[in-house]
This record gives sequence, C-alpha cells and structure tokens, in this order.
Amino acid sequence: MIFYANSHGMNTNIITIPPQSSISYAMRTQKNKHHGGVLWFTGLSGSGKSTLAQILQKRLFDEGCQVYVLDGDHIRQGLNRDLGFSPHDRSENIRRIGEVAALFADAGIIVLCAFISPYQEDRNRARLAAGDKFHLVHVNASVELCEERDVKGLYRKARLGEIKDFTGISAPYEIPHDAEIVLDTAQHEVEYCSSVLYNYVRTHLFF
Amino acid sequence: MIFYANSHGMNTNIITIPPQSSISYAMRTQKNKHHGGVLWFTGLSGSGKSTLAQILQKRLFDEGCQVYVLDGDHIRQGLNRDLGFSPHDRSENIRRIGEVAALFADAGIIVLCAFISPYQEDRNRARLAAGDKFHLVHVNASVELCEERDVKGLYRKARLGEIKDFTGISAPYEIPHDAEIVLDTAQHEVEYCSSVLYNYVRTHLFF
Repeated sequence: MIFYANSHGMNTNIITIPPQSSISYAMRTQKNKHHGGVLWFTGLSGSGKSTLAQILQKRLFDEGCQVYVLDGDHIRQGLNRDLGFSPHDRSENIRRIGEVAALFADAGIIVLCAFISPYQEDRNRARLAAGDKFHLVHVNASVELCEERDVKGLYRKARLGEIKDFTGISAPYEIPHDAEIVLDTAQHEVEYCSSVLYNYVRTHLFF
Repeated sequence: MIFYANSHGMNTNIITIPPQSSISYAMRTQKNKHHGGVLWFTGLSGSGKSTLAQILQKRLFDEGCQVYVLDGDHIRQGLNRDLGFSPHDRSENIRRIGEVAALFADAGIIVLCAFISPYQEDRNRARLAAGDKFHLVHVNASVELCEERDVKGLYRKARLGEIKDFTGISAPYEIPHDAEIVLDTAQHEVEYCSSVLYNYVRTHLFF
C-alpha cells in the first residue's frame, strides 16, 4: 500500500495497486475443508430434484460444509422477477442462475441448483460459467411416472392445456449425456439416491 | 416423508410435502457465529470502495467469518454481460447485484459490494432485497480529490469526453442520507476507516 498527500496536503490514502481479491479461492477451501462446487439437478417436474437437493443440503450441513440451495421460487421472486416464460426468458432464467451458482462456488460454497433446465444448450452454459466446479445430476424419472405422481397437479393442468409448453407434455426435455451422476428415482429409494449424491460429494469435493 | 408405490408397483419415492429448506437461516448463523449481511459500499470512482472492501474481507476472513466480495468486473463479465451502460442497463446492473447479494446474505455470508451506485432509487432497491441485513457504507470523498487521485485515469478520459455519463463529472452522484456508515477517506487513513468498518461488523453482525 502506498500513501501520499495531494497538492492540498490532504491525505489521499491512495492505493496505487488495483485492488485484487484479498482472499484466494484456495484460502477459502482450506478453511472450509472442501471445494466449492455447483451440483446442478436437472430433470422433469416431479422427478425429485428439490427433495434430493434438500436432503443433501441437510447432510452436508451436518458434516460442517458451507452449502446452499438455489431454488426456482426464490429466484423468480427476486433476481429473475423481470423474466416471464417465453423461450428467451426461460433460457435467460437458467443463464443467470448458472452465473450466480458460479459465484457461490467461487466463494467456496457447495451450491445445489434444482431446475428442470430441459435444454442442453442452457445446461452447457451453466457448466461453462462454473468450469470444473460444475457437476450435473440427472434426476431421471419417466414422464409417465412423474405424471402419475403429479405432486403439484401441474401435469393435469398441462394436459388440460391450462399450462402451455410444459416440459415432457408439450415441450421437450433433452436428456443429458454428460451428467456426472444419473439417479433413477423410479428404481431407487430416496435414501439410496441421497447416499449416491453424498458419496460423490465426499469423493470429489472433500479434502 | 411419505413413500408409496404407484399402480405399476414401482417405488415412486414421493414426498408429498413440498420441499422446504432443510437448513434455516438461524442454523447457518449459529454455525458461522455471525449473521449474514450485505455491506454495500457506495461512492465515486476512486473514493476507495474496493480497497476498503478488500481490506475488510481479509480481516473478517482471518477472524473466521464467511465473507465474499462482489466486484464490478466479475459481475460485468458474467451475470450482467448482457447489460450495457444505458440508464436502464446501469439500473438493472445494480438491481441484479442487490438480489445476488441478498442471496449471499441469506446463505449466512457477509458479502461486500463495492459499486459506485450513484442513484438513491437503485440503492433503495438493493436495501429492500436484503431487508434488515443491508448496511450502507458511504465512502465519502470529493470529486476534486478523486479526480486528483485518478487511479485508473478515468477522470481524465471523462474530462476529454472519451467516457460519457461519468459519475461526478457528467452524471450525478446522489449523496445518501441513509448510510449506516460514512467514511471520509480524505480526512482519515485507510487503517482508521478499516477499523471503523470492522468494529461496525463486530457490533452488528457478530454474536
């Protein structure tokens, strides 16, 4: 740091070196004892994304991790409240979430993002934002099963035409082929899926 | 959690209760031993916002806090790379940063935001997003002093008309009257200003 007085004799407190981050990513991870990361849960509505993210959050928190869940409602009411549901706006919704998630990961946090995110291009962009801190989790359940569950009654509304462009019914879901984890929630219980997730994080993000 | 099998006899693993956050804000603060918060540094270009934010980050990190700095370059290259410098885009830039900062605070983190943010309306919106977790820091230095420092050579360019709508030269800076902290970086050295900031955080955000 360099201090000098200006021509009026006032202390200008100037620091001529542009301020760089005083804390590196490595320092954060050393303190937290785990890497930052984005676990991006993609899958149909009702496939179990949010449920699994919440269970994982609990387990990681109990283990002492810095962990946070980004959920749709939260984001739609805040950061993305200017966005609607046009193709452009849906894509922009996912883009911004991907960028925010990357910031959380840079801060040394394990951030769990549960969004249908049906398009490969949008998911690719989220991966690009977080780089090697990005981990894709495909929560794989068939449309038939999700429709039968229909936890929120959305599939019924989609069938009745009350919701347009509903993923799996009237809009496509592009199955990812680049997922680090695929969870078949039709075949396996929540406990099993949670264990798979936890073990993945433990192996890849813990020191 | 309720599990049941569907009509095909498949385990649907369904949880009928909509997933709420498995970790409360109170649980996070208890673990971190401090509250989450947004410290929003406003002031002219060259007033010392980023410098003070970086010094504060270092001190809080060394004390064991979860702390992160959101800076302009980072955001402009990522989340807000779709935005230019029109009045609308500048306002939207600050709006989004305010929303992201609120998410960090909700995650239990002390987030330091260093942005000129010259308009009261924009700062009000950032305050609204984070609620009582928002703390405004006015880094107060006169245009004359900042121009004399001109660390990045921006004032010179603004005077030459190479940069338009430059805050303090060709665009207004609305002095805040609601700042929780006012730091006069012309009168006080960096060390003093840093101590004021640290003591504020210690008093208001630590347990």
